[in-house]
Amino acid sequence: MDLDSAKLNAARAVFEEVGRYEVIGVGTGSTVEKFIELLSKQERFKGKLYVPSSIDTALKLSERGFRVLNLLSSPEVEVYVDGADEVDPRLNMIKGGGAAMTMEKILAYYAARRLFIVDYTKLVAKLGEKHPIPVEVLPCALSPVLKTLHKMGFRVELRASGRGKAGPVVADTGGVVIDVYTGPLDEPEEVNRRLKNIPGVVETGLFLGYADAVYIGWPDKVEVLKPSTVIKV
Amino acid sequence: MDLDSAKLNAARAVFEEVGRYEVIGVGTGSTVEKFIELLSKQERFKGKLYVPSSIDTALKLSERGFRVLNLLSSPEVEVYVDGADEVDPRLNMIKGGGAAMTMEKILAYYAARRLFIVDYTKLVAKLGEKHPIPVEVLPCALSPVLKTLHKMGFRVELRASGRGKAGPVVADTGGVVIDVYTGPLDEPEEVNRRLKNIPGVVETGLFLGYADAVYIGWPDKVEVLKPSTVIKV
Repeated sequence: MDLDSAKLNAARAVFEEVGRYEVIGVGTGSTVEKFIELLSKQERFKGKLYVPSSIDTALKLSERGFRVLNLLSSPEVEVYVDGADEVDPRLNMIKGGGAAMTMEKILAYYAARRLFIVDYTKLVAKLGEKHPIPVEVLPCALSPVLKTLHKMGFRVELRASGRGKAGPVVADTGGVVIDVYTGPLDEPEEVNRRLKNIPGVVETGLFLGYADAVYIGWPDKVEVLKPSTVIKV
Repeated sequence: MDLDSAKLNAARAVFEEVGRYEVIGVGTGSTVEKFIELLSKQERFKGKLYVPSSIDTALKLSERGFRVLNLLSSPEVEVYVDGADEVDPRLNMIKGGGAAMTMEKILAYYAARRLFIVDYTKLVAKLGEKHPIPVEVLPCALSPVLKTLHKMGFRVELRASGRGKAGPVVADTGGVVIDVYTGPLDEPEEVNRRLKNIPGVVETGLFLGYADAVYIGWPDKVEVLKPSTVIKV
């Protein structure tokens, strides 16, 4: 209940900023769902264009009468709104609980402005504290990629499809989703680089440097974090 | 004619080494085709197991009665044999003329020993001299990836499907194939890193550090090159 109102508070708070834009990229997940719910109640959001990060979000948007664009039509995505599974103090994130991280990363990469909305339970000191890193893998490369990750010392699980499909989850983008358990990461950049270098890996759920602002929802307030400027000395 | 015998010489020369192994990864392309042709004429290669890098190679092997393994069955690929489009003095390569570079890289990465067979016209001083870099891209990310490459200053072409399919070539691994014209590369590692970092890029045709030996076929001889040891001072 508390969590629900925390999510809702974050979703509500991001509205003002999003309202300034006409082409809006939309992420995937439970917090984004609340955001879409809110969108549909405000007339001024009806005329805008939406670029979804998943089949799930595309359907949720079009069911509510929003105009959904295909990314192939080359829209300039002016703002992107999404949730996250973990957020660290540098606003780096783990995403992919909904298996949509590849498309989410594509959208976040190309959007002019990237806003994330999360409830307070997503804050961590180090990425990997609570969640594994979701990784999308080409189906043909599954066995060798698993072997390589084992050799690198990681515990890995195929993400089992809950219902309606035997075997592992396949993402909208066609790859198999695996979860790589790393524990708390001191150097997420290095781990991301190693993962991306394995042939057969399509994308990882480590979002490093992708947030322009993170709206943290609490039961009674919203905190907006922006990446701090780091001066190397 | 000269070129044909050069390819044949390289394919013939690699035989002795390949004959020592039981599980053989097989690349894709015209030089590999000559290699498969030669394989099928030697009884001692009938009992071995083969892991193909493409539908084309899988069919060519199974038509000739060879036993073809799926990579999902986790074979330990003992040796990998493939061609290349360009080879530089450090034995770095451009591959992907046959649009199979993703699967080829997966196989080459996991194989215990990697042998390449090329004719002498494939030798270059710098990668990118004669060929663009083939890149496989998720279909949903095509437009934004093209935009990013343009911004990076590269000329890019969608690889048009020659016959039987409208629009661009789709690789066996599901992605769209584009050709990135870079010109001669001083730092292929840096370009590869930049390309791989673009969300939506599945794999590139830059094979850096993947060759244990390259057999160069000439009309009248074969030269075997091995990576030199570089001592950083």
